[in-house]
Amino acid sequence: MQKVGILGGGQLGRMLLQAAANYPVITYVLENDPECPAAHLCHHFVLGDIRDYDTVYNFGRQVDTLTIEIESVNVDALERLESEGVKVYPRPRALRTIKNKIHQKLFYKEKEIPTAPFIVVENRAALETHLAELPAVQKIGEGGYDGKGVQVLRGPEDLKNSFDAPSVLEKLVPIKKELAVIVATNGRGETAIYPATEMVFHPELNLLDYQLCPADIPRETLWKAEALAMMVVRGLESPGIFAVELFMDSRGDVWVNETAPRVHNSGHHTIEAAFSSQFDMLWRVMLGYPLGNPDARQPSALLNIVGADGFSGDAKYDGLDDVLKMGNTFVHLYGKKTTKPGRKMGHVTLVGKDRQELVYQAGVIKKLLRVIA
Amino acid sequence: MQKVGILGGGQLGRMLLQAAANYPVITYVLENDPECPAAHLCHHFVLGDIRDYDTVYNFGRQVDTLTIEIESVNVDALERLESEGVKVYPRPRALRTIKNKIHQKLFYKEKEIPTAPFIVVENRAALETHLAELPAVQKIGEGGYDGKGVQVLRGPEDLKNSFDAPSVLEKLVPIKKELAVIVATNGRGETAIYPATEMVFHPELNLLDYQLCPADIPRETLWKAEALAMMVVRGLESPGIFAVELFMDSRGDVWVNETAPRVHNSGHHTIEAAFSSQFDMLWRVMLGYPLGNPDARQPSALLNIVGADGFSGDAKYDGLDDVLKMGNTFVHLYGKKTTKPGRKMGHVTLVGKDRQELVYQAGVIKKLLRVIA
Repeated sequence: MQKVGILGGGQLGRMLLQAAANYPVITYVLENDPECPAAHLCHHFVLGDIRDYDTVYNFGRQVDTLTIEIESVNVDALERLESEGVKVYPRPRALRTIKNKIHQKLFYKEKEIPTAPFIVVENRAALETHLAELPAVQKIGEGGYDGKGVQVLRGPEDLKNSFDAPSVLEKLVPIKKELAVIVATNGRGETAIYPATEMVFHPELNLLDYQLCPADIPRETLWKAEALAMMVVRGLESPGIFAVELFMDSRGDVWVNETAPRVHNSGHHTIEAAFSSQFDMLWRVMLGYPLGNPDARQPSALLNIVGADGFSGDAKYDGLDDVLKMGNTFVHLYGKKTTKPGRKMGHVTLVGKDRQELVYQAGVIKKLLRVIA
Repeated sequence: MQKVGILGGGQLGRMLLQAAANYPVITYVLENDPECPAAHLCHHFVLGDIRDYDTVYNFGRQVDTLTIEIESVNVDALERLESEGVKVYPRPRALRTIKNKIHQKLFYKEKEIPTAPFIVVENRAALETHLAELPAVQKIGEGGYDGKGVQVLRGPEDLKNSFDAPSVLEKLVPIKKELAVIVATNGRGETAIYPATEMVFHPELNLLDYQLCPADIPRETLWKAEALAMMVVRGLESPGIFAVELFMDSRGDVWVNETAPRVHNSGHHTIEAAFSSQFDMLWRVMLGYPLGNPDARQPSALLNIVGADGFSGDAKYDGLDDVLKMGNTFVHLYGKKTTKPGRKMGHVTLVGKDRQELVYQAGVIKKLLRVIA
């Protein structure tokens, strides 16, 4: 049986391991926290830092194949492991390109993939010489994750809060919709494209409210989005699964925002709403099986369950019973013992025939379910 | 977080633990084989014999809640644990009734639940005094499982192969179809009934070919089957999940064959074909959540993947790629290292709109996929 290691043991690892149990495979997880969501679902749990060269190298030497559930891993170790014959998904070179937002933007530019215009700044002092670029989005080169390391600089008054580190300063695009297209490729020229997902944001709070799939966009926009996602994946020259996040602007033009070279929140609905989930698909790629069917079984909506503001400590799920009673919901709780404001604690997928009904119900769930302590 | 233990670590435990990862729960498994399909998917694996009193008692003392994935467990220990406050699903008294086929048949008789006429025989010598009952089905009282412990005695010439143990001698019913109805009940009066499944047997080999759900039966037959399943579950007076296997005879009458007080092979399709799978449903019962929705998302067929005759050793899945390429199949391999003839190694679920298409495709898969060594 093939031995596959996962760097990181959060909810993505947890859902990967749920899907792994459909196949004959020996699983390994490397993570610093012995109580992480994935720790108990693998054959071999190794306690250690995914950013440390020796730790990752020694972990990787035990397995045939490696993957990641987060970008902040030691890529040098992965490159050495790859040179020694370990299969790594995504390839370390692709991961290096993606991991640093500066490299990622330069990659889009080099491959002529439409993305918001940008400049690279080395630090806060350099930023001060580019005040004409504001308003703009500043994205830190290394270390950003899950919305962290990204902020809007409206004008000179925001400079004091800017990141004092190498970063990208990106022109604000007039965003009409945010989309994600997940693509899997097995390195034998075969690709599978999932239906585009649409991120719906709260009009005032600018927080992700819920996701809808398939996205409610014109056919031509979908084609553009799929074409760009394919360009990104071809350009990265790596087998694996990739979530390409895109903007649709008010004119219907589509721009690549950023890419995750791994399973991604924008694909969690695929567990119940697609024939082959993003997690199943990655196992197929890694185990050398044919790609799965990415088509939608039904339209779906997805809400993240995040820790409510003002609560930290042992998690309690207020309103959970009401959501579990709904006949078309699938509740995923990640088993995290403690909550804190904004922490991802789970998600709910809804399936249905009618988009209006899904949107309405997503709103109801949003009001019902709160993670408190 | 609630601590839940499972007695047995086979594929049923494996699929239970896949579903458990959607909820906050600490899981324990007791099983003799450290490489069993469920061993690596729980928080705490305990090596030990589920039939041994002390082993089961000591295992159960660590947890809040217990369930089983096989009937051959130490019920005395479960009764003591229940008396000490551990919640056991199913209740030990119900398990004791079911576990012994003689008690089970007497239970149906007592509750006036239609079942094939039968007599109880103590041993082979006693059998010889009941030759007038043949042809009949002999079912051993204790220890039968998965088709073992059941055989047809056509006439006196079969006596030499009969079980020399307390058993049931059951009249042969003219079976037209075999059905299964899965019922969940949470002990607060709430029940959920899954659509009936139909077992389709090979006309010559008398082996289960595939399952279809919903069953292709007249509405009145379905109502009878559901009514009988409910009578069984009410009679057992236990929360949990129950698979009631039934016969439909040539006149459309329905008889209870036997009951499994646990998740069951006849419900594996519910993972993809129902809103709440049988595994999800049992967690809801055990964790005190509302019952899930048992309705079918789509019609489905299910085939078991069993070890091919003539092959024993490290399992290889011949034809697997062809099945994985089909857009509407869900392949579950149980991760068993070695195969032997007839061993359950996995299953394939197909979903589709059209029953004819499902039946045709089940036949194709049956021919394609073989477990060899």
